[in-house]
Amino acid sequence: MKLLRFGDAGAERPGLLDNDGNIRDLSGVVDDIAGETISPDGIGRLSGLDIDTLPIVDGTPRLGPCVSGTGKFICIGLNYSDHAAETGAEVPAEPIIFMKATSAICGPDDDVRIPRGSEKTDWEVELGVVIGKTAKYVSEEDALDYVAGYCTINDVSERAFQIEHHGQWTKGKSADTFGPTGPWLVTRDEIADPQNLAMWLTVNGEKMQDGNSNTMVYGVAHLVSYLSRFMSLQPGDIISTGTPPGVGMGLNPQRFLKKGDVIELGIEGLGSQKQTCVDD
Amino acid sequence: MKLLRFGDAGAERPGLLDNDGNIRDLSGVVDDIAGETISPDGIGRLSGLDIDTLPIVDGTPRLGPCVSGTGKFICIGLNYSDHAAETGAEVPAEPIIFMKATSAICGPDDDVRIPRGSEKTDWEVELGVVIGKTAKYVSEEDALDYVAGYCTINDVSERAFQIEHHGQWTKGKSADTFGPTGPWLVTRDEIADPQNLAMWLTVNGEKMQDGNSNTMVYGVAHLVSYLSRFMSLQPGDIISTGTPPGVGMGLNPQRFLKKGDVIELGIEGLGSQKQTCVDD
Repeated sequence: MKLLRFGDAGAERPGLLDNDGNIRDLSGVVDDIAGETISPDGIGRLSGLDIDTLPIVDGTPRLGPCVSGTGKFICIGLNYSDHAAETGAEVPAEPIIFMKATSAICGPDDDVRIPRGSEKTDWEVELGVVIGKTAKYVSEEDALDYVAGYCTINDVSERAFQIEHHGQWTKGKSADTFGPTGPWLVTRDEIADPQNLAMWLTVNGEKMQDGNSNTMVYGVAHLVSYLSRFMSLQPGDIISTGTPPGVGMGLNPQRFLKKGDVIELGIEGLGSQKQTCVDD
Repeated sequence: MKLLRFGDAGAERPGLLDNDGNIRDLSGVVDDIAGETISPDGIGRLSGLDIDTLPIVDGTPRLGPCVSGTGKFICIGLNYSDHAAETGAEVPAEPIIFMKATSAICGPDDDVRIPRGSEKTDWEVELGVVIGKTAKYVSEEDALDYVAGYCTINDVSERAFQIEHHGQWTKGKSADTFGPTGPWLVTRDEIADPQNLAMWLTVNGEKMQDGNSNTMVYGVAHLVSYLSRFMSLQPGDIISTGTPPGVGMGLNPQRFLKKGDVIELGIEGLGSQKQTCVDD
């Protein structure tokens, strides 16, 4: 299933995408795409629905982030060997973990607001993993049982805030609208192998990133298991698993986003996003 | 006012501490100590209550974290000049920001669970700042208007996870129970000067930390203003503002927490906490 949330920001309703590309309204069935709804049992119940009986949503409403109730927005740094190389960093001996503010989460096609004082706002297409069941000290073998599904994420990053203002990366990762998430939460059963998904990103139509999750250093199952040693994971938590090469910081000369730029990005099977950059 | 939450974990009810030390039940007045309730208007309404009309809670119920609905648990690193010195680090040229997982938040007297594989679990008494109103690009002059109040926090830290496992500090700050918060959210009007509060921490009765917020490098107003450049702050967000000297990592020889150790800590006017360490 392709679960989604549609409507005005902060007032989204739950829905799903049917095989004809229609949005079907789930608000008569579940409260939100969050918590119990994305647990194994909750997804099992949704799978049993006769989709044809659900109301079709007219028009093309705004899409919100595809999951709600996110307590943690966890990111993995330098998790593609060729991206590490372009930034001049070593491939890390263990996964690098940092957090994005959950207040950065926005819809897949919402404007990206360039923060005041920013000169180095950059893009990163990433495979998002949405947790469906509380995970703590889980083995790599069992780890995918705790995953509700996958989504496309743009891990928007301000490189000066991240690197030049001292200390930890969270400072450059957390501005409002720095976390477009969706369009859909694609349930795990639809993704045969999360480690073999094409990923791409363009700026103003020019291809910037063109990678595949098969070059990830630490795969999804390893990351869920590894993270669960250091913190518990709850339903709705998002893990953004790192970006392939082609970010603006890695170009020569470097290139960063400015007002009016249009970013499009997508991942095989998970749908695409389109954002326009505006000043905040 | 001293606002609090009492009852079993996950089912806490809102309350306040009266001048005689009784817990008064607020559940007939507000849903929780969160969101609108801790906005300037919400606190204004609570201030107008006749406390004597509120039911007294019998016995000594467990206290939960003093605020709910925390979207971000933001920490400031090396924010006391003498603590920076004991860890061998320079005083940072700008505040160091990192995140603790919100799933680490627990009640002030709950057990601290030492993670599996931990050998370096450490303590940090910290002044917690609770946001009461959405803050974005706010000036240092106006910053305290966005603060609902203050609380005691133990920023429990696993030093090997934080420092020896590569990358960002969040890895050593985020285990379940690593964020005892409370006992009370003391509203801002009761704290004349957040930069002049005595702070202390003992382990098994032995004084380990004995500081004062007057040695903070970056004060509360600066931190709220500074943070609001990099992310928006929402009601219920917590800023833990760093620790004075005396952590276990800074001792010679170093000393870390083990099963059975009892940590007590407190801040002038904000109340005290007591945790027993157990294995997770």
